[in-house]
Amino acid sequence: MNILVINPNTSENMTDAIRESARRGAGSGVNVDVVSAARGPRSIEGNLDHCLASVGVLERIAGSIGKYDGYVIACFGDPALEAACEMVDCPVVGIAEAAMHMACFVGSKFSVISVLDRARPTTEELVRKYGLWEKCASIRTTGIAVLDLERDPERAAKRLEEEGRIAVQEDGAEVLLLGCAGLTGMNERLAKAVGVPVLDGVVMAVSLVETLVRHQIRTSKKAMFMKPEKKGIVGYGSVFDVIYTDGPRGDR
Amino acid sequence: MNILVINPNTSENMTDAIRESARRGAGSGVNVDVVSAARGPRSIEGNLDHCLASVGVLERIAGSIGKYDGYVIACFGDPALEAACEMVDCPVVGIAEAAMHMACFVGSKFSVISVLDRARPTTEELVRKYGLWEKCASIRTTGIAVLDLERDPERAAKRLEEEGRIAVQEDGAEVLLLGCAGLTGMNERLAKAVGVPVLDGVVMAVSLVETLVRHQIRTSKKAMFMKPEKKGIVGYGSVFDVIYTDGPRGDR
Amino acid sequence: MNILVINPNTSENMTDAIRESARRGAGSGVNVDVVSAARGPRSIEGNLDHCLASVGVLERIAGSIGKYDGYVIACFGDPALEAACEMVDCPVVGIAEAAMHMACFVGSKFSVISVLDRARPTTEELVRKYGLWEKCASIRTTGIAVLDLERDPERAAKRLEEEGRIAVQEDGAEVLLLGCAGLTGMNERLAKAVGVPVLDGVVMAVSLVETLVRHQIRTSKKAMFMKPEKKGIVGYGSVFDVIYTDGPRGDR
Amino acid sequence: MNILVINPNTSENMTDAIRESARRGAGSGVNVDVVSAARGPRSIEGNLDHCLASVGVLERIAGSIGKYDGYVIACFGDPALEAACEMVDCPVVGIAEAAMHMACFVGSKFSVISVLDRARPTTEELVRKYGLWEKCASIRTTGIAVLDLERDPERAAKRLEEEGRIAVQEDGAEVLLLGCAGLTGMNERLAKAVGVPVLDGVVMAVSLVETLVRHQIRTSKKAMFMKPEKKGIVGYGSVFDVIYTDGPRGDR
Amino acid sequence: MNILVINPNTSENMTDAIRESARRGAGSGVNVDVVSAARGPRSIEGNLDHCLASVGVLERIAGSIGKYDGYVIACFGDPALEAACEMVDCPVVGIAEAAMHMACFVGSKFSVISVLDRARPTTEELVRKYGLWEKCASIRTTGIAVLDLERDPERAAKRLEEEGRIAVQEDGAEVLLLGCAGLTGMNERLAKAVGVPVLDGVVMAVSLVETLVRHQIRTSKKAMFMKPEKKGIVGYGSVFDVIYTDGPRGDR
Amino acid sequence: MNILVINPNTSENMTDAIRESARRGAGSGVNVDVVSAARGPRSIEGNLDHCLASVGVLERIAGSIGKYDGYVIACFGDPALEAACEMVDCPVVGIAEAAMHMACFVGSKFSVISVLDRARPTTEELVRKYGLWEKCASIRTTGIAVLDLERDPERAAKRLEEEGRIAVQEDGAEVLLLGCAGLTGMNERLAKAVGVPVLDGVVMAVSLVETLVRHQIRTSKKAMFMKPEKKGIVGYGSVFDVIYTDGPRGDR
Repeated sequence: MNILVINPNTSENMTDAIRESARRGAGSGVNVDVVSAARGPRSIEGNLDHCLASVGVLERIAGSIGKYDGYVIACFGDPALEAACEMVDCPVVGIAEAAMHMACFVGSKFSVISVLDRARPTTEELVRKYGLWEKCASIRTTGIAVLDLERDPERAAKRLEEEGRIAVQEDGAEVLLLGCAGLTGMNERLAKAVGVPVLDGVVMAVSLVETLVRHQIRTSKKAMFMKPEKKGIVGYGSVFDVIYTDGPRGDR
Repeated sequence: MNILVINPNTSENMTDAIRESARRGAGSGVNVDVVSAARGPRSIEGNLDHCLASVGVLERIAGSIGKYDGYVIACFGDPALEAACEMVDCPVVGIAEAAMHMACFVGSKFSVISVLDRARPTTEELVRKYGLWEKCASIRTTGIAVLDLERDPERAAKRLEEEGRIAVQEDGAEVLLLGCAGLTGMNERLAKAVGVPVLDGVVMAVSLVETLVRHQIRTSKKAMFMKPEKKGIVGYGSVFDVIYTDGPRGDR
Repeated sequence: MNILVINPNTSENMTDAIRESARRGAGSGVNVDVVSAARGPRSIEGNLDHCLASVGVLERIAGSIGKYDGYVIACFGDPALEAACEMVDCPVVGIAEAAMHMACFVGSKFSVISVLDRARPTTEELVRKYGLWEKCASIRTTGIAVLDLERDPERAAKRLEEEGRIAVQEDGAEVLLLGCAGLTGMNERLAKAVGVPVLDGVVMAVSLVETLVRHQIRTSKKAMFMKPEKKGIVGYGSVFDVIYTDGPRGDR
Repeated sequence: MNILVINPNTSENMTDAIRESARRGAGSGVNVDVVSAARGPRSIEGNLDHCLASVGVLERIAGSIGKYDGYVIACFGDPALEAACEMVDCPVVGIAEAAMHMACFVGSKFSVISVLDRARPTTEELVRKYGLWEKCASIRTTGIAVLDLERDPERAAKRLEEEGRIAVQEDGAEVLLLGCAGLTGMNERLAKAVGVPVLDGVVMAVSLVETLVRHQIRTSKKAMFMKPEKKGIVGYGSVFDVIYTDGPRGDR
Repeated sequence: MNILVINPNTSENMTDAIRESARRGAGSGVNVDVVSAARGPRSIEGNLDHCLASVGVLERIAGSIGKYDGYVIACFGDPALEAACEMVDCPVVGIAEAAMHMACFVGSKFSVISVLDRARPTTEELVRKYGLWEKCASIRTTGIAVLDLERDPERAAKRLEEEGRIAVQEDGAEVLLLGCAGLTGMNERLAKAVGVPVLDGVVMAVSLVETLVRHQIRTSKKAMFMKPEKKGIVGYGSVFDVIYTDGPRGDR
Repeated sequence: MNILVINPNTSENMTDAIRESARRGAGSGVNVDVVSAARGPRSIEGNLDHCLASVGVLERIAGSIGKYDGYVIACFGDPALEAACEMVDCPVVGIAEAAMHMACFVGSKFSVISVLDRARPTTEELVRKYGLWEKCASIRTTGIAVLDLERDPERAAKRLEEEGRIAVQEDGAEVLLLGCAGLTGMNERLAKAVGVPVLDGVVMAVSLVETLVRHQIRTSKKAMFMKPEKKGIVGYGSVFDVIYTDGPRGDR
């Protein structure tokens, strides 16, 4: 089984950290490749970053059609997730949806610990989109930018613990989620510090893709994730031709 | 890794079918035991059945403390799920929650195909409890009682297809869920007939427990699933003593 | 008119207190019997307690079929409520649902003052199940275990007042609900202290059953509370035979 | 105990029918007076009717301060309910809120059978305001105007049965509510015809006021139903002076 | 184009302030008349005020049928809005709905800064009625009564800034709304002080009516805002005859 | 005042139609430029189209910084809306949000008439994101692909009428929205045919931007739409440099 994990941003250091987690998530006999987007912003913190990174993700998928059994999108905003699900039949899982759904099996309320304050409204929208707002105790932020996480990981760990503790003691969180792929790998230390399970979306997403693939559960091609219609496209070179020349003529 | 799957009803035939699915769900190196509740109704279709079956489930868990790495409750009402999560530290997953959450990874709307009409309001309550009502296109029923499923599986399969087709074509379902453990194993034929993924909660729950165990994610012991308080209990023999003599003195 | 009030736990002291409140709730010409469950935990604080107590409640009802005009389940978790509604045609009311619905007639937001912290997520689920989450200002807890309430009632009263005051002044509560049958009778003193109405679910539930009986409003036997199907049951002696040998053959 | 039931419209015939139901709803020793609004439209079917009728209701209350232990507003739109709750300390209950909350004790889903089609969106808003939308299976209408109900009660009864049957068989209703005070008294026949409980809001509201009064539960004077501020008013004669000259100076 | 702005209360000073804002809101070639209700309370702070003011608003509209192209109701409770929409075909916009919807174009969360504490639950109900509760960060109050605003505008401005700052810094508000027509004109100073957009509902509502009129978008006469049925009315003189003698005979 | 309307797809014919509507929407003294995205798919029907078109929209905005007072995104999926709001201080309005919010002023329920069936789940997600799901009566589709609309406009108009009529008569819609920019200009004919207001999002959005600009209401720069952080970006040429070299250092 081959799984491609895509880091939607273009920071190779983060891709290395994601690779480590992703491989820890995978079972035996599962080959996991991890790549960055080839274009896009260095980090994904806001809505513009998200849109620009989405194309980077989609190009990676278009360029690998037929080579993988499943995909993981490794950014807590799940950029381009629905579009990716349209492009392929095999499972595509985002690390935010993975962490949120898995959290529901081990606690009745989760909190997300994210990076900059600006992530709060977008994360709230994401939780609502997945229908899990009732299960969300709070969204907290450390105030540390994505690319600063690796510059001072000790400070990041401390801020995570501070916010995690408040989430558990005041907000009613029973499970914590690492709200950024840049935090991958910090779950164990945080769990020990705060005394509740902490989920790393990268690990969860890889495991979920593996499970779906193992049981041959493919993305539904009815309505939401139907293959794109056959149509012209300009300005993206030929990378998406494999998708757009092959689509249905519409459900007219 | 050892997983105990509990069929909450007392029909051995159904337990056999569940065993087959559960083992198909398990990865290599995973031992799966499947047992019926030792007491309770022959089938679980209403609220009284649910309550009486719950004790059967809990006795199985109390009687196996320390022997398993995780548990599955194999009835689509997820009876006794929260109580079971309190009793042990290891993961306990119900087949309804497993199927519903996994459905969200492969489609934007799911429908549940259940048995008797009376299952509709209780299933609606369950979906709402898990916060996923927005993702539920419909709850449909075949009108065939649980114990009649095995008497005429061909008729059951036909009714499943009829209702599944309506769910997909009229209700907007992109994924279907088998809404009763007695339907386990019927997913592949149904998927072929209706052209969308069909999830078997037994297979999903075993896989999820396996994933949680593999990554050492245990049930949160904060608030909802905290160990029961130390207290007296009468009328249940000694089976729950292991739980109640060992609890905290409260969070006072 | 004869009403049976069931204390789902097995603490006779609490049953005595409930009896006093229940009789205060009843109008003239109404006979109120109050009994404990014959089996189950001494107090009900968590999910396991709730499941085990449920059977005790249901056995009391099965053993009294035909003798009462209505039932009250006197624990703020409303254990076994839906199952009880299935078993009989006459009204069955839980003290939590009674208090919550009645609160809506005298204020636009209520708060529940409960016992241990662990009650918060379960009470939230209960409020949501009844559809009244928008009307709930907060769920607060005193941190005093159920069985400790009677050991030091003065301390309990003081903690109730402290939390009640915060609920009114900070959370926006306009009405308070006693969130545990063990608090029954404490409403008047609390109301005086905080200046808003405080509802005692035991009193409310008895009154509601009386009203329903007086107007011959019986539980709907359509869908949710339909009589249980005829089926076999093992391990519960013969107490539930009166129910299961008499049911419909299903809505097939 | 003295209860005043106010028919918000100015049709004496309907007031007579409401009087009959209200007295049937009252227990022994309860005196029930029933009056029409002194001004307003002959029937209440839309939003303008509702506003104009509200003043009629409020004048009746202002003119009877100190004479009653509780009030019922007998129109299924509950006109002026919140304002009435502000004016007095004693309980005021509307027939819509009464019917909806009581329905929740005997079934998991109710449908409202109303009069003209235009009542659908306003009734939906009312159900949502009370937080009970999840419990509402449907809102159906007979298409018969309020004042035509008494002209051809047989036709009204037939249309009620037709719509009630669809509500039960197709929409999943387990309880029906008479969605107009003009339908009062038709509940028994309808219940017999459709086989589920049918609640008459007039009867329910009188019983609820009686219960609240008996247990000395008064309207909360915190926030929502606080007494009106002391202030000038023009154009309403002196009827509201008793309220406005006596109010608080505000919570500044 | 002629627009009538109605101040639902009977304070001429406030009407003058509203006139100033309303004319600032209007484009060139738009004539804006601003009047007070001819009867009702001096200020609108609670539910009784709201009901009594509603009739004043409706009389102004009934008395001006055919003279205006659109109406604005200038009180943050939007009194009589639905009834007004029934009476005329042309657009009627309330300042609360105007401010709330417009806020959604410039921020993801708004807070309302209102006057007395009692406004909190009614404003919450209003936001919920418009479906925008998810977009509301908080409802805050200055504790200053409506008629005291003009007595000490400096104090009002300071309290607005204090509460506005908390809304932005702690509650997550990205936009602020002036929660009372008596605050009209204070938006610019507040915006400067807190650094986020502040919307004045009077200005917004006039602009929206102008836009709707310019594009000939009239109120839908289907269901909710259908013309009132033809019917008798007593106690309101002849002012509403123009409405009630002209209505449809019902949708029977 | 200068407004730029961006057609997110690359079909010049559609851009012409949008230009006509946009200019009809604008008041006197408002200059409206209308351009297509320079890259992306010919039409936007699914999630992949949406992502790829988003970049086209954002490039147009980045390339015009400082030249316009406001922007309109003219595709009913509102692609790149949040990112666009981040990039500039002036208002950016999408045609879907414009139509949905404006609909709320003239009716209590709207229906969207869209193109292909696949638009149903994405449109539902959009309505939910804007918080207006309670106001949505239904989402209906004509089954005609975007680019086929202009090939046979008569057929499109007929299908619109058929679906619009069902929305009004069966779903309870009081207002209809054209669910695709390709339908722009068809509102008047449809309104005449079905007898309820029909809103054209292009016209609404231009008017709203004009109103916001006229009253100097700018996008909130707090949280959701804060300027992007200063950061590196690769693979997009220099078009976004104007944004990314100028951003804040984060809220750390």
